[in-house]
Amino acid sequence: MSVFTKVTPQELSAWLKGYAVGALTDLKGITAGIENTNYFVTTTRGRFVLTLFEKLTAAELPFYVNLMAHLASHGIPCPAPIADLNNSLIGALNGKPATLVTCLSGVPVVAPKPAHCVLVGSALAEMHLAGQSYRGDLENPRGPKWWRETAPRVMPFLDKMRQDLLQSELEHQSRFHFHDLPRGPVHADLFRDNVLFRKDARRLRLGGVIDFYFAGIDSLLFDVAITLNDWCIEPGGTIEPERARALLEAYRAIRDFTPGEREAWPVMLRAAALRFWLSRLFDFYVPRPGELTHAHDPEHFRRILESRRAGPEAL
Amino acid sequence: MSVFTKVTPQELSAWLKGYAVGALTDLKGITAGIENTNYFVTTTRGRFVLTLFEKLTAAELPFYVNLMAHLASHGIPCPAPIADLNNSLIGALNGKPATLVTCLSGVPVVAPKPAHCVLVGSALAEMHLAGQSYRGDLENPRGPKWWRETAPRVMPFLDKMRQDLLQSELEHQSRFHFHDLPRGPVHADLFRDNVLFRKDARRLRLGGVIDFYFAGIDSLLFDVAITLNDWCIEPGGTIEPERARALLEAYRAIRDFTPGEREAWPVMLRAAALRFWLSRLFDFYVPRPGELTHAHDPEHFRRILESRRAGPEAL
Repeated sequence: MSVFTKVTPQELSAWLKGYAVGALTDLKGITAGIENTNYFVTTTRGRFVLTLFEKLTAAELPFYVNLMAHLASHGIPCPAPIADLNNSLIGALNGKPATLVTCLSGVPVVAPKPAHCVLVGSALAEMHLAGQSYRGDLENPRGPKWWRETAPRVMPFLDKMRQDLLQSELEHQSRFHFHDLPRGPVHADLFRDNVLFRKDARRLRLGGVIDFYFAGIDSLLFDVAITLNDWCIEPGGTIEPERARALLEAYRAIRDFTPGEREAWPVMLRAAALRFWLSRLFDFYVPRPGELTHAHDPEHFRRILESRRAGPEAL
Repeated sequence: MSVFTKVTPQELSAWLKGYAVGALTDLKGITAGIENTNYFVTTTRGRFVLTLFEKLTAAELPFYVNLMAHLASHGIPCPAPIADLNNSLIGALNGKPATLVTCLSGVPVVAPKPAHCVLVGSALAEMHLAGQSYRGDLENPRGPKWWRETAPRVMPFLDKMRQDLLQSELEHQSRFHFHDLPRGPVHADLFRDNVLFRKDARRLRLGGVIDFYFAGIDSLLFDVAITLNDWCIEPGGTIEPERARALLEAYRAIRDFTPGEREAWPVMLRAAALRFWLSRLFDFYVPRPGELTHAHDPEHFRRILESRRAGPEAL
């Protein structure tokens, strides 16, 4: 469950008087999500999502919330934060920083087809283009610095084969730096559960991109690699060529890759796999006190990493 | 018709490369509207409205476009202007200033019932609250100064009875000034054709408020009076009490009237009638060269004005 902080209809009705979104008619906790408290909020005006931030502070939030507002104003189908009557996008409710955002329509897809990958590829490219004029600044908090800090903390839990793999990959990555590649705001977590699809006049549509709370400034190509590592793979971790082609072609039609990006691609795919292998190892072996454990199996991303190391992939 | 400036799919596809809204799939001229060229634009992402401004200049537009962006960011269901990749809400296409805005769902109602008036009243109040933090500044261009300039230009076309009525009303209005009443951005044209309704789970919803191109800074009560003079009247111009009560009660539940507003109400209802009688007289008798004539019958608002003069209305 993901209602860590309870909100009553009475509390919310009072809080909503600070907004111009109509009167509350329904309030329902959302069970998905592990980081924040989320509610579906229905008013006389429409549907919204209320989020109470359980870990992020009001000081960290502006990067994410302003990024969503920026992208939404460019037509990207992402949650649009609603400003309150004081013109602020971030409020406070029951002692937590809180936002009210538009509710997007659609459902995630479990087994994506090439048609889904086309929509994801083009939406990702358009997010990257629209993000170029965003002025917020937050280095991706799960970048190489975090890898170097985190590896020693999980290393003792690993067997020799996995220790060697981790060590070898960190050394390989340390030989590259990507700061000359095109950069900007990246979603950095565009997995299948963060994209909604809907049918509109029997046509498949991207209903929305959600959960921007891993976003940061990084190489745009890093975002492409993360996305491909989730959308375009076989269960064993190998790349499925038809979906990969669909995603990359759709992306390129909107933002083509630079020569530097083409060169960096194989390393970047490995970097994207490493980042999630590491975070899943960390969540698995180093649970923090008082935290609910929703650890994913770290092995999934080890297999992806092994697969990317085995075969050089071309853009 | 209201496609004054033609746009081809080829021209639009090229123009849309400056936006992050997907690829063009359909383009259709909109026949409603008399001031601008409007198209429905469908992309792989969704539906938008393209407007080419035929009279307003790029210098006048920011007040309106930024107001829509401000209200939309507060959750008001109005067209949200889409920013281009240069982060601008106003572009240029085929020599005209142009905007791309979200397409709202719903249809206008011809014969409103009290339930419609409830939704309009509350939406108007929320627009007024959300507008309080808007920093744009543009005095309502159809205010008392414009009345005084316009009256002499239509006077020669009127018979004695109407000349006396106009003169008498101008004199009456000149005895009041409303600058101490609550002020802010007003829509100033919230007629039935500018509000869209839709059914959502069998519930009547306000789908959107459109056409902000008569907006300006004025007394909020002036906006209420304009709205009531269209939504809550009998064909002869008299106020229909059930709808009037529905609209005003819904408005008051969100923003209550001040004592000064209660006092000003009968004069304000007359001012709102005068403003439209005058503009319709002007459009009827003083057509401008090269302009399509869509003049409404001025008599409708003369009857409304007479009705407001006859009976003092209480808030």
